[in-house]
Amino acid sequence: MNVKKQEKNKLEEHEIEGKKDIAKRVFEISKNIAHQIENNHSPTFTTRVRGYSNVYFDEKNNFIQLGDKKVTRPFLNLGAARKFMQTVLVNDKCYDYLIHDKTASIREIYYELKRTVEGTKENTFDAQEESNDVIVDIEHSVNTIREKLGLHADPKGSLYGDITLIDKKHDNDEFNCSTLGRGGWSIMSRLEPEEIEIKEVNADYVLVIETSAMYGRLIEERFTKENRAILIGTGGQAARGTRRLIHRLRYEFNLPVIVFTDGDPYGWYIFSVIKSGSMALAAHSKYLAVPDAEYVGMTLTDVETYGLQNVTEKMKDGDIKRAKELMKYDWFNTPGWQKELKIALDKKIRIEQQALANKSLDFVAKKYLPEKIKNKIFVK
Amino acid sequence: MNVKKQEKNKLEEHEIEGKKDIAKRVFEISKNIAHQIENNHSPTFTTRVRGYSNVYFDEKNNFIQLGDKKVTRPFLNLGAARKFMQTVLVNDKCYDYLIHDKTASIREIYYELKRTVEGTKENTFDAQEESNDVIVDIEHSVNTIREKLGLHADPKGSLYGDITLIDKKHDNDEFNCSTLGRGGWSIMSRLEPEEIEIKEVNADYVLVIETSAMYGRLIEERFTKENRAILIGTGGQAARGTRRLIHRLRYEFNLPVIVFTDGDPYGWYIFSVIKSGSMALAAHSKYLAVPDAEYVGMTLTDVETYGLQNVTEKMKDGDIKRAKELMKYDWFNTPGWQKELKIALDKKIRIEQQALANKSLDFVAKKYLPEKIKNKIFVK
Repeated sequence: MNVKKQEKNKLEEHEIEGKKDIAKRVFEISKNIAHQIENNHSPTFTTRVRGYSNVYFDEKNNFIQLGDKKVTRPFLNLGAARKFMQTVLVNDKCYDYLIHDKTASIREIYYELKRTVEGTKENTFDAQEESNDVIVDIEHSVNTIREKLGLHADPKGSLYGDITLIDKKHDNDEFNCSTLGRGGWSIMSRLEPEEIEIKEVNADYVLVIETSAMYGRLIEERFTKENRAILIGTGGQAARGTRRLIHRLRYEFNLPVIVFTDGDPYGWYIFSVIKSGSMALAAHSKYLAVPDAEYVGMTLTDVETYGLQNVTEKMKDGDIKRAKELMKYDWFNTPGWQKELKIALDKKIRIEQQALANKSLDFVAKKYLPEKIKNKIFVK
Repeated sequence: MNVKKQEKNKLEEHEIEGKKDIAKRVFEISKNIAHQIENNHSPTFTTRVRGYSNVYFDEKNNFIQLGDKKVTRPFLNLGAARKFMQTVLVNDKCYDYLIHDKTASIREIYYELKRTVEGTKENTFDAQEESNDVIVDIEHSVNTIREKLGLHADPKGSLYGDITLIDKKHDNDEFNCSTLGRGGWSIMSRLEPEEIEIKEVNADYVLVIETSAMYGRLIEERFTKENRAILIGTGGQAARGTRRLIHRLRYEFNLPVIVFTDGDPYGWYIFSVIKSGSMALAAHSKYLAVPDAEYVGMTLTDVETYGLQNVTEKMKDGDIKRAKELMKYDWFNTPGWQKELKIALDKKIRIEQQALANKSLDFVAKKYLPEKIKNKIFVK
């Protein structure tokens, strides 16, 4: 039985917003500047304040949000003129991409726009950080994500399982990700509905896995056949395209999302970003976060339960520092997480996903995951 | 017209050697040790000396090779006993994998074998580096690669183009890598012929690309349709599975291999490893290297040819150091490479693949690559 796709009109507007609507808002920015100049006003550009002072944990939505504080940048200001010029250049180029249905990586747009300004020795951009920064400004000003502006970062991550995708921008290629051998599909950097349609999913849940080796192990053990899961290997911190795919599976197909990482502060942080979003991308949580994602393991409680004392590793200083940070986050302030973090800091140990191989190679697929998932032994 | 596959009997023996033959040699190691013990000799383990002192550039094969120097490790020696025990454990486990047709990541075998030795406080392994090291010993002693022992590291890299693969260990899945949308196939960590059959290839050459973003760009621009190429995105330094795939396409299908990286010492080193092998894996060149691979770009000569002066970047200290190293390598001792390295060191500049976007987004696909490849403008 395949999972029923949500009616399009039940999905939130920002999810399925097309290029035309976004192009309109991008155009408004330039139009506004032109209008100010025509009326002899100093032109300005308005975006949202980013960073800690404007970030909060939204209890209602259960994810990290960016507040409403705005900042308006004037053109007639020596410190801001350069950035203003860069903003206009990138904004103009994004409009160009949108109306011509083109896309580019954030490195490409940097090089596309880099040049020496005529009659000066000044470059439009000296380093990619400058254009990256402006892209974030525009995302926040237009209130969308870069992927919907036609931009993207490097892809990372793999997809495996009984899920059929259609690439609408590539001959309407239709393919099922359970028949691509054990490699699976290389997840693209842009996973927007107008490019990639998720046609059909036969699964009960999505399992997100931190390490590529564990993703490979579960495929090798035929985990998806016995457990009706879609597997997503993130290869470390999940890339934006991968997070967007997880988010869409949750909301378009109403599939539970379960996360499986190493049992250490870094792995738990990977889970936290998938679930609640991150401070750096606080404004994008509504596109990327999955607030009801569950965490199956590894936990330090597992060490006792499964007798894994011999295969823990020592935490490094960086782990300890991060564990202390996590303890203070609102979204880790639950009995289950406080307990895990306390064990971590008391015993200064961590445990990797592969440590389960100490029982046997197939232990993770035949016992650990099925048992914990069936009995909903998640960290709460 | 598809490319004709080489007759199996024309491929070298080590390429297609099956698990049985390798298991036999693994068994020999243990048998030999047992024999020594039964005859009251101190048991020993023999492998090849690794490192600079036993590495040379093989002019005939045109790749880096490991010499014949051997080292024999005694058991009855306080410094060697621990390593000896580890070697026996890993060797035994590899045999187990081979006869049961199992595979594991190098992290999994570490955890599978990690335990406290009964009656002592001594662990079999304290860190993964220890088992990694032993795996390399065994590869060299058995004279094969870890993938043929059933072991592998993390996968990385993507494949796109008119190439049909069969995963013989996964329901004989058959799939063509030009119909998987723009993501392509996630290259597995093991690409041995007995697991993955390359059934058919419709292409004139293989194009290996350093950055994932450039790989995506070429797919987006439909490069393979107009140019009959197979695209392999390495995402930085090529993983072993990816190198094995490139090597097989060269030797099983007689396809030319052309490499396209950033124009800097790091990118050139990526090329060099694909072409000539690396010192760390000197013994494995015959499985991994492609000595007649060609280098299409980026070059510093391109900067003049295509007027890219505005979009070069400054070399960092690490780049300069590496450029000086490359200058001394036998396999960079050609007029073309010495010229490139001299420009790099004189001008201290580098150029990225994406810098071509300065001309236009499709410049790389419509002009740069087709022109250089057609006219064979390679660094010689």
